[in-house]
Amino acid sequence: MIDPYDDAYFMKRALQEAEAAYEKGEIPIGAVIVINNQIIARSHNLTETLNDVTAHAEMQAITAAANFLGGKYLINCTLYVTIEPCQMCAGALFWSQISKIVYGARDELRGCISLNTKLHPKTNLIGGIMAAEASQLLKRFFIEKRNLN
Amino acid sequence: MIDPYDDAYFMKRALQEAEAAYEKGEIPIGAVIVINNQIIARSHNLTETLNDVTAHAEMQAITAAANFLGGKYLINCTLYVTIEPCQMCAGALFWSQISKIVYGARDELRGCISLNTKLHPKTNLIGGIMAAEASQLLKRFFIEKRNLN
Repeated sequence: MIDPYDDAYFMKRALQEAEAAYEKGEIPIGAVIVINNQIIARSHNLTETLNDVTAHAEMQAITAAANFLGGKYLINCTLYVTIEPCQMCAGALFWSQISKIVYGARDELRGCISLNTKLHPKTNLIGGIMAAEASQLLKRFFIEKRNLN
Repeated sequence: MIDPYDDAYFMKRALQEAEAAYEKGEIPIGAVIVINNQIIARSHNLTETLNDVTAHAEMQAITAAANFLGGKYLINCTLYVTIEPCQMCAGALFWSQISKIVYGARDELRGCISLNTKLHPKTNLIGGIMAAEASQLLKRFFIEKRNLN
């Protein structure tokens, strides 16, 4: 039997969020948090709109998921995020004790893997799900931005 | 001439915030952000009250200072925080490009120094200002918490 709720299914939802960010002129990164195949948080980067460096997709998703669950630990939850989390977001995910993080494309320069950010021992990190789509959207954003300036 | 607005002056204000956290049963950590000797943000840890692992004193202070300034970069600002920032907060401070971070006591286990979190090249980090007061408040909190359980 085919499971319709695989990692690609939820990463597509995260990519839709990244596209919503793109439409607002935000660096296009999106995220969803899932528990038992149910999306309990969806968000996209809003750093420009909110004038706030902390408004990354993951940070908003962590807060929203905790609100939904009524507790601050994201046990049995999975975060899908289109780009590898940065130090700040990985640090927040450490505190959340989230069970699984699935990212799309790597961020070699600012991502938590290159910068060796410590994840919680309970957290499983996997990547490369729909990486091409995630990085193409990001590249398109930066090319258009360069052409506007 | 004695400058009344030295690091100890502002760290005392951060310690008052930490005491406010203590009174609420929160891990007692406080922060203020200062520009031109003016406090533009004050905050304390609210992770229990808000059920949110991202509600560290520094994160709230970064958001509040950016709101005050009307821009997301904290150039020429100094953050005073009673305990060395964690990976999440140091990661947020990286994005803010804050000019100076002054912490009180070290956090050998979870702090950004031990965990090698990358700070922005424009950021100057100094520590040890009123460290004894900051760590005593934290110790008192954990001893009382242990005795209650």
